[in-house]
Amino acid sequence: MRVGVLGCGTVGSSLISLVQRQRATIASRTGLQLEVTRVAVRDVSRPRAVELAPEVLTTDPAAVVADPAVDVVVELMGGLEPARTLVLEALAAGKPVVTANKALLASHGPELFKAAADAGVDLLFEAAVAGGIPFVRPLRESLLGEPVHRVMGIVNGTTNFILTRMTEAGADYAEALAEAQALGYAEADPTADVEGHDAAAKIAIVASIAFGAAVTVDDVVVEGISGITAADIAFAGRHGFAVKLLADAQLTDGDDGPEIAVRVNPVLVPETHPLASVRESFNAVFVQGDAVGDLMFYGRGAGGDPTASAVLGDLVDAAVNLDRGAHASVGALAPARIRPPEEASAARYLSLQAVDQPGVLAAVAGVFGEHGVSIASMEQEGGSADGQARIEFVTHRAVERSLRATLAALEELDVVHSVGSVVQVLTDGGEGA
Amino acid sequence: MRVGVLGCGTVGSSLISLVQRQRATIASRTGLQLEVTRVAVRDVSRPRAVELAPEVLTTDPAAVVADPAVDVVVELMGGLEPARTLVLEALAAGKPVVTANKALLASHGPELFKAAADAGVDLLFEAAVAGGIPFVRPLRESLLGEPVHRVMGIVNGTTNFILTRMTEAGADYAEALAEAQALGYAEADPTADVEGHDAAAKIAIVASIAFGAAVTVDDVVVEGISGITAADIAFAGRHGFAVKLLADAQLTDGDDGPEIAVRVNPVLVPETHPLASVRESFNAVFVQGDAVGDLMFYGRGAGGDPTASAVLGDLVDAAVNLDRGAHASVGALAPARIRPPEEASAARYLSLQAVDQPGVLAAVAGVFGEHGVSIASMEQEGGSADGQARIEFVTHRAVERSLRATLAALEELDVVHSVGSVVQVLTDGGEGA
Repeated sequence: MRVGVLGCGTVGSSLISLVQRQRATIASRTGLQLEVTRVAVRDVSRPRAVELAPEVLTTDPAAVVADPAVDVVVELMGGLEPARTLVLEALAAGKPVVTANKALLASHGPELFKAAADAGVDLLFEAAVAGGIPFVRPLRESLLGEPVHRVMGIVNGTTNFILTRMTEAGADYAEALAEAQALGYAEADPTADVEGHDAAAKIAIVASIAFGAAVTVDDVVVEGISGITAADIAFAGRHGFAVKLLADAQLTDGDDGPEIAVRVNPVLVPETHPLASVRESFNAVFVQGDAVGDLMFYGRGAGGDPTASAVLGDLVDAAVNLDRGAHASVGALAPARIRPPEEASAARYLSLQAVDQPGVLAAVAGVFGEHGVSIASMEQEGGSADGQARIEFVTHRAVERSLRATLAALEELDVVHSVGSVVQVLTDGGEGA
Repeated sequence: MRVGVLGCGTVGSSLISLVQRQRATIASRTGLQLEVTRVAVRDVSRPRAVELAPEVLTTDPAAVVADPAVDVVVELMGGLEPARTLVLEALAAGKPVVTANKALLASHGPELFKAAADAGVDLLFEAAVAGGIPFVRPLRESLLGEPVHRVMGIVNGTTNFILTRMTEAGADYAEALAEAQALGYAEADPTADVEGHDAAAKIAIVASIAFGAAVTVDDVVVEGISGITAADIAFAGRHGFAVKLLADAQLTDGDDGPEIAVRVNPVLVPETHPLASVRESFNAVFVQGDAVGDLMFYGRGAGGDPTASAVLGDLVDAAVNLDRGAHASVGALAPARIRPPEEASAARYLSLQAVDQPGVLAAVAGVFGEHGVSIASMEQEGGSADGQARIEFVTHRAVERSLRATLAALEELDVVHSVGSVVQVLTDGGEGA
């Protein structure tokens, strides 16, 4: 079984080396010999971690896809184009494709899954969502007979590392980000991670496969962690919560049938919830199924070796399926009905800076009441030199629309200086985060 | 695709009802219609949770297996015989078998896997190890190209519930057990759970598939939780550990090649380890792979619906494979080389009751030193009315042989009244628990 690889960076090198090391094991368990016959790279002269014969290397990825000596294509280039065109060409030529390209699937998943179904070959993507965690296959296969109604994940290691450092070392956001950058967990421009865009791409893919509907990254409501302060983390800790950036896909009951709600935002997770114990740069995906109940899949969400390990699992599957004339594609996705974000219902933590004087709390509480937002608990910290008080609230479940109106009215109160973080609170059951 | 079910208790009823509810979904995703055509029960007249036509029911399981109108057999009877014979007969007749019978696989796995491989049909058993957690398939498929060197699990919900109550409510063992019995988590005779036999059967199966070797329940070193006291739990809590009953399978380097070590025993797990956060009756399986790093699979280890959900996943797989003429069996297992238990190396916590007088600690510490067991930390609690002191130790890593010699010598000291619990401590890396 001859494999063509597009892209030979960290993951590509790990994969090729893993194929070489595990070839005998794979052959003994599947009867198939895997061999990497063509590799498309940007620069053939660059030294790399893995040894490859000069005739294997090329700078033309289209030539790898078209090569009759390539049976299966592994796409590790990243980006939308030319990756999209190359994947479509491979599928049209009857060649299964394994990809770790989350951006591609999050933007063009429905088109690509349909192309795979039309061609009757595999398009597999275990590594695109949560690196080395074997989660996509169980979601698709083991839970085939199982309606899944919610999938929540910590799917970005950078932000989880930052939040862990803020929680455990008492660091503020800027310090924790600097540490993540120094350790190589965060990029020099950390926007894609800390503002939630990476997680949004992943949860769009997860929602598509969990609910069989064409969800794209544009459907995801996104908020990052850059507004989270040390005071928010401290409040969470005092009340038995960990702050996590959750990517959340839910199937909800809309007025005209099922609706999908997909969001990425910081959430106060109860410390007894398994997602709260996911520390450092680890990832985890939490699945709620009707029959199976709660499931969680935990592991390394990134890194060359873990990601290559997931790619190899898919590659073996694709090779076995191709050999048997079978395929295991997602198939055509139904159009997705997305729930309007203003209808989302959730409990929330929020903080505000107000004048430290009698009667302020009554005024503030009155605003909540007027907008139908019920307060579950409140803490006031006054006595600071500047005459300000920090007031922290946890609300009962309220719809987004009411919350926004409450926030707008709070900001107009003379006694309120500013509204700080607004963070969802994960409550048992219910559709809100 | 016609399904015969042997046994119609909690899991069987859940399964049949799940097949009925999910038939349309399964058909749309796989093209196959699943239908339960025959069900073997103990008493046809007993009322059950699921409606079945009278001609579907029989008291003769062999008739279900032999029925030409049955394509796939689901074995949910439990026990060794007649389950073993019936499974062998089904496989010999070319009928794939799905089973949740851990006792059967833990005792006769190698024979049954070989029979399935010889017949070229599936023998699937996702539900046998950790109920509803889709863990066996990822271990076998996603990690196909991945050497796994250790699998550790909390695979018994009863003991995890008891230990959680002891930790969180400060209950002693007898109280927590009584609560577990009142809630239906523990049987009237709790021996199989609390003494670790249930977990031992499961880890034997896990070790077989993780390492491709014929490990049976007789190879497992087993110790239960009935000796764990409230004082042990309190010590663990003060030092940042949770006490868990771990089932542990490791591939180790022996003098003459790789050896397998398989054990079930209580372990002090660092609170930062993901297994420490598995609470109540939940299960989790933690996998260490060379490339993928650490993985954990978490969910419901028991219960009718979660277990039936795992069985249904296998059933759909078996049906799809049968339809395609494919199979995904474990295949013949190599003989297992089991590491002699006295060579196991681990850090340990232990407590002893001694005379509360000066010089006792020196005498006790001397015994550790003579046997080459190094002490990592020590705590002494004296001043009790009976003139006794409780002394607690955590040792550095030491081999079982040296530890046993130390314990024997301690018991011979005049100043030592008794040696209490001896509990392994999970340390990073290394082969010991």
